[in-house]
Amino acid sequence: MFRLYYAPGTCALATHIALEEAGAAYESVLVDFGSQRQRSPEYLAVNPKGRVPALVTETGTLTETPALLCFVAQRFPEAGLAPLADPFALAQVQEFNSYLCSTVHVAHAHGRRGARWADDADAIEAMKRKVPATVTECFALIENKLLRGPWVMGERYTICDPYLFTIGTWIEGDGVDTSKVPGVMRHRARMLARPAVQKAVAAEGTQIP
Amino acid sequence: MFRLYYAPGTCALATHIALEEAGAAYESVLVDFGSQRQRSPEYLAVNPKGRVPALVTETGTLTETPALLCFVAQRFPEAGLAPLADPFALAQVQEFNSYLCSTVHVAHAHGRRGARWADDADAIEAMKRKVPATVTECFALIENKLLRGPWVMGERYTICDPYLFTIGTWIEGDGVDTSKVPGVMRHRARMLARPAVQKAVAAEGTQIP
Repeated sequence: MFRLYYAPGTCALATHIALEEAGAAYESVLVDFGSQRQRSPEYLAVNPKGRVPALVTETGTLTETPALLCFVAQRFPEAGLAPLADPFALAQVQEFNSYLCSTVHVAHAHGRRGARWADDADAIEAMKRKVPATVTECFALIENKLLRGPWVMGERYTICDPYLFTIGTWIEGDGVDTSKVPGVMRHRARMLARPAVQKAVAAEGTQIP
Repeated sequence: MFRLYYAPGTCALATHIALEEAGAAYESVLVDFGSQRQRSPEYLAVNPKGRVPALVTETGTLTETPALLCFVAQRFPEAGLAPLADPFALAQVQEFNSYLCSTVHVAHAHGRRGARWADDADAIEAMKRKVPATVTECFALIENKLLRGPWVMGERYTICDPYLFTIGTWIEGDGVDTSKVPGVMRHRARMLARPAVQKAVAAEGTQIP
């Protein structure tokens, strides 16, 4: 049985949903960010990066959402969560997820975790002020160029969908005008109708705007 | 024949090396950052993100280094650049590359591209000041926990190696004390002995410290 370390409101939800979609046998373990458990020696022994998600498998521990999502898809191929045998189609899936982790999640993180990149309080405030603009720009690209509909990759539900859904739940807090991204909002509604999404969201107690 | 859009000194070098290692038929096209060609209508038609690398294939265009590297590995399986059939081992490869794109490259980018995340000149200077600390922290994790040696994944050369090599060529400029990361420096030397690396570096005219 796998063990997924998560915290509510983090990108761990994407992997949580993927495990549900795949019908994987797993347990989920809350890492309490309120008491800084992600920095405890016990958790750093699981994931030296001090972040979530981390997935403990029978072979070892994995981190980083794009890697975890692809792992779930490849480990449970019968769930059909990625076009595993088509190099170009799989690359498109990974391109989308890589954009989410390296650009979109990073843009969002400047609103809450600015101390990662500057020590100065004024600089951290300056980063916060730019979050609505940078996250809006990312979601305009997603809305207008990347999200094919009804799912990210078109007719087929893939590991891009739980990841977009998860990061998409942050956009109200990031100051994005959701009326400008109707496709993203329809995608959210479509995701919320899926039993796997409902189950993962309820298990985490994650608030969906 | 593929077409790789690149600029010297960028992460495009990783894909450039992988294409050489795979023996792929490709041409490389310089995108002149000096004249802001990455923002030209012609280039935005290739890659609406306005960044490099972009790889034009017979099926369509791909971006994002981790996706491109996995694509090259899967498209040219005879080159053996990734453990494609082993979900856990492949996830470890992707975990490493995802860390490079979402954390290490991002830490580096705060030294030169701070305007992405704040408009205030003082804030941009504050970000620059923290780069030696953040990049040093990333490379300490790589040195002490992630890089197995002789290659990133151990005995087998994979798509992690050109990516680490590429981002590793920036660390002197980022203020990392290279005497603290001897394994990373041995890895650089080992990479520079490979004909594929020599060829890609020379074709780009990329300066290696």
